[in-house]
Amino acid sequence: MRLIRYGEPGQEKPGILDTEGRVRDLSATLDDLGAASLGRDALERLKGVDVAGLPLVAEGTRLGPCVANVGNFVAVGLNYSDHAAETGAAIPAEPILFNKAPSCIIGPNDDVVIPRGSTKLDWEVELALVIGETCSYVSEEEALSYVAGACLCNDVSERAFQNERGGTWTKGKGCPTFGPLGPWLVTLDEIDDLQDLDMWLDVNGNRRQTGNTSTMIFNCAFLVHYISQFMILRPGDVITTGTPPGVGLGMKPQTFLKEGDRMSLGIKGLGTQEQTVRA
Amino acid sequence: MRLIRYGEPGQEKPGILDTEGRVRDLSATLDDLGAASLGRDALERLKGVDVAGLPLVAEGTRLGPCVANVGNFVAVGLNYSDHAAETGAAIPAEPILFNKAPSCIIGPNDDVVIPRGSTKLDWEVELALVIGETCSYVSEEEALSYVAGACLCNDVSERAFQNERGGTWTKGKGCPTFGPLGPWLVTLDEIDDLQDLDMWLDVNGNRRQTGNTSTMIFNCAFLVHYISQFMILRPGDVITTGTPPGVGLGMKPQTFLKEGDRMSLGIKGLGTQEQTVRA
Repeated sequence: MRLIRYGEPGQEKPGILDTEGRVRDLSATLDDLGAASLGRDALERLKGVDVAGLPLVAEGTRLGPCVANVGNFVAVGLNYSDHAAETGAAIPAEPILFNKAPSCIIGPNDDVVIPRGSTKLDWEVELALVIGETCSYVSEEEALSYVAGACLCNDVSERAFQNERGGTWTKGKGCPTFGPLGPWLVTLDEIDDLQDLDMWLDVNGNRRQTGNTSTMIFNCAFLVHYISQFMILRPGDVITTGTPPGVGLGMKPQTFLKEGDRMSLGIKGLGTQEQTVRA
Repeated sequence: MRLIRYGEPGQEKPGILDTEGRVRDLSATLDDLGAASLGRDALERLKGVDVAGLPLVAEGTRLGPCVANVGNFVAVGLNYSDHAAETGAAIPAEPILFNKAPSCIIGPNDDVVIPRGSTKLDWEVELALVIGETCSYVSEEEALSYVAGACLCNDVSERAFQNERGGTWTKGKGCPTFGPLGPWLVTLDEIDDLQDLDMWLDVNGNRRQTGNTSTMIFNCAFLVHYISQFMILRPGDVITTGTPPGVGLGMKPQTFLKEGDRMSLGIKGLGTQEQTVRA
C-alpha cells in the first residue's frame, strides 16, 4: 500500500493511492495515519479495504507528511560509504545517531524556510523507516517486522548550526521545515529490496546527489536492531537512515541553498518531493 | 498549582495536590495532563477548580510522569559552572543541546533499569521546564511566558554509551527508564525564583550532589529563548536544564550505579524522587 495524508497543515486526513496512482479518501476507515494505524494488525485490516470504492480526492490537494504525530525522529549520520569519503570523515565503527525535532516535519512539497542567521543551508536525500510496533532489544533478523514502511525524507541541515555552535548536531537538524516526509508511506511488502533503491536530488534542475541504498554502511535491519539497544522505539517513530554523496558541504567550493532555490528529490518506488527555499 | 498524574503505567489520570499535600482526582475536569491542558488559558481555567471538593486519591497510589505524551525531550549539557569544572570541561560559550528519547520517561519513583551491556550508569538531578505554548524565536524577556511549569528530573545517563560509542550523546541518554519526571508539575506562579532553588541527590543515603540553580551558566529564560532559535517548541515538550556537581563520572575514583542501589533526589518546592536500580 502507498498511504498518504492530504489536506491543510494540521488538518490532514488519511488517504491511499489506487492502482492508477490517484488519491482516495481513507477517512471513513481511519482517523489518521499515526501510531494507532501503523501496527501489523491495523495494516492487515487496511489491506482488506476496497480502494477502488473509496471517494477520490481532488487532484492538486496538498499532501502532508505521511506520518502523523511522530514521537521520535532519529537520524543516522555518515551512513553511506561514498558520502563519508566525500566529507573526509572516517567510516564509522558504529552507527552515528542524532535527533531531529519532530516539530520540523512538513509535507513533501511544502516550502523550506531559511532559519534566522543561517549561512549554510544544505540538502540530504534519505530513506526513512517508519516504526509500526514497539520494539526494544530486537534482533537484526526480526528488526524489519517492527517497521510499517518506508518513505522519502529530505534531512535538511544547517551546517554552521550543526558543526560550529558547540555540542551535538541537534541545533542544525531540527529547525522549522527541516523534515519533509513523504509523499507516500510505502508498506514494506511493496518494496522488493530496501538495500537496492536508487535515489537522487536536484537543485534548480542540476543533479547534486546520486546514490543507491546498496552503499549504506549499516543496513536498515541492522539500524533498527542497533537503535533499539539504546532506546525503546514506538509506533510512529521515524528513523532516517543517512544520505549518499553530493551534499553542498562536500562540494568544492562548498555550495549552499539560497532563497528561491528549488530542490527535487526521489527514491525509486517511494515517490518524489519538490521544495522551494524561502526566507 | 502542583499537578500530578497517578495510576498504573500507561493508564494515568490527572490529579492535583490540595493545601494539605493530598492527591485529589482531576479526571472529571481533564482527560490527561498533556499538551492540551498546559496552555495559559487551560491553566487559568484549572485555577478556578474547587480543589477541596475533588475526590481524594488513595494514599500510596503510584505516581506517573507529571506530563503525558512528551513530544520532544531536549536536554542541556554542562550548564552548571561548578559541574563543568568537575568534569574538566571548558565553560561552554553557548548551551550544549542533546536529546533524550521521550520513550525513556517514567514516574518519579519507578525503578531504573540497567541497560544491557551497561558499565557506567550515572545520575543527574535536574530542573526541567515544561512548555505550555508553542514558541519559535521567542525573546529572553518573553520566554518564561511560554512555560507551563517546572518539575524534577533525573537525567539518568550511561557514560560509556554516551561518550565511547561514537557520535553524539544520544545513545547514553534515552535508554528505557532514563527519564524519571515528577512528582509534581509546579506552575511557575508558585515558584519564587527559578534561579535560586536548592537541589540534591543521594545514593544509598550518601549525599552525592548538592547544588543550586543559581550556578547555572545559562538561566531558564535564556535556554527557552536559545532553543527556540533552533526548533519550534510545542506544548508538552520538556527541557531539562543540566546538572550541578557530584555525578559518578566526576568522582575520584569514578563511581557508577549497581543493582539494588537507591537514588533519592529533590529540588526545593518541586518534591522528591526515589528510584531503585535493577538489572
